[in-house]
Amino acid sequence: MNLILLFQDDFITNTIARLQGRRLRHVLQVHRASVGDELCVGLLNGQIGVGKITVLSQTLLEMEVRLERAPPPALPLTLILALPRPKVLRRVLRSVSAMGVKEIILLNCFRVEKSFWQSPFLNESSVKEQLVLGLEQARDTVLPEVLLRPLFKPFVEDEVPALVKGTLSLVANPAAADPCPRDVKRAVTLAIGPEGGFIPYEVEKLLAGEFIAVHMGERILSVETAVPALIARLF
Amino acid sequence: MNLILLFQDDFITNTIARLQGRRLRHVLQVHRASVGDELCVGLLNGQIGVGKITVLSQTLLEMEVRLERAPPPALPLTLILALPRPKVLRRVLRSVSAMGVKEIILLNCFRVEKSFWQSPFLNESSVKEQLVLGLEQARDTVLPEVLLRPLFKPFVEDEVPALVKGTLSLVANPAAADPCPRDVKRAVTLAIGPEGGFIPYEVEKLLAGEFIAVHMGERILSVETAVPALIARLF
Repeated sequence: MNLILLFQDDFITNTIARLQGRRLRHVLQVHRASVGDELCVGLLNGQIGVGKITVLSQTLLEMEVRLERAPPPALPLTLILALPRPKVLRRVLRSVSAMGVKEIILLNCFRVEKSFWQSPFLNESSVKEQLVLGLEQARDTVLPEVLLRPLFKPFVEDEVPALVKGTLSLVANPAAADPCPRDVKRAVTLAIGPEGGFIPYEVEKLLAGEFIAVHMGERILSVETAVPALIARLF
Repeated sequence: MNLILLFQDDFITNTIARLQGRRLRHVLQVHRASVGDELCVGLLNGQIGVGKITVLSQTLLEMEVRLERAPPPALPLTLILALPRPKVLRRVLRSVSAMGVKEIILLNCFRVEKSFWQSPFLNESSVKEQLVLGLEQARDTVLPEVLLRPLFKPFVEDEVPALVKGTLSLVANPAAADPCPRDVKRAVTLAIGPEGGFIPYEVEKLLAGEFIAVHMGERILSVETAVPALIARLF
């Protein structure tokens, strides 16, 4: 936790925030902080600044908060991700939240196991928990939006045209002819398939929707590795 | 498992390999293969090719192996990684093995917890298991070398000068002035610190050893995210 993310209801006055639970334990056990110490804080979807500890016990922390600067810029990226298996999903959500992705669409495909859609890790609170961990890691405050799209065809036919408009639209595919471009300096829509890849029908639908297939070399990477690698290559 | 990695002692004749255990189960449960099917195989540290299944039961698989092409090229990278916590280590080893890193040095630093060095995940067999999983994921055969360096100072003073010779030597640091270069097309030595970063003394020692500090933006990334991101940026 390189930044303590604060929520509006942590504030007991305009400038005093009171913490308990996970964030308090982290301050005690990892930061090993004392009264008077200043910690990096940020307000959810707001500014970043400093929290000066005024009260600290095993059950309660109060800090005087001074917010003073904008969070780091977001990536101009919409990530369309075939729903990974639940444990991987958690790590990928943390990772993309930390990298600054703000638009994440979890999509069904032929090779996504149906059971993944029943996972408790897809609950709104569980998704938010991982996104917040990513923001705290990266010192960001802006919560990404995660949309669930359990039907491939209507998503690609009805929603994709508006989504990709004005963006460079890429689908990652180890069999693609073109390498993933570098340092693109423009808005991107990036589709990443499941373990085992999109099936040919799905690739065709995406290509028909103006996506360009790109590869990261002949190695087939797991979703967890491919996602940060593709994002780092693009931006 | 996009490639089944074969070892010399899997071969019962020059061309027939016999599998049991994990790889057999994978062929039965994930590939759902039958006699006559051809699977992608590779010989440890050797070529890649095809294994045509000749015998298949719940306890045994035999395949006729035809090796025909070289594995994908290795990355010209020596990765010096502050030893991460054990669970993260496993995933990072898989990930860098899949990306084609062949030289990995796990280094002690001030912010590496002493207990990490006692982890059973550092056993040779456990490390090899993760590296093999990475090779199988990426369709590679060449096992990376992993060296353990539990003493920072003698490593940096005595070994680093020979190690970095002729390479672009970089240390990842969110506070660096320069961004991580892209598409470098040369050999690189890359040092990545622990969660919490190298301490100033360690950064100074690395800079004195001709390393250049580079960043990936103002976001602080976890080791799991930073490693594939830095590698994808560099190559």
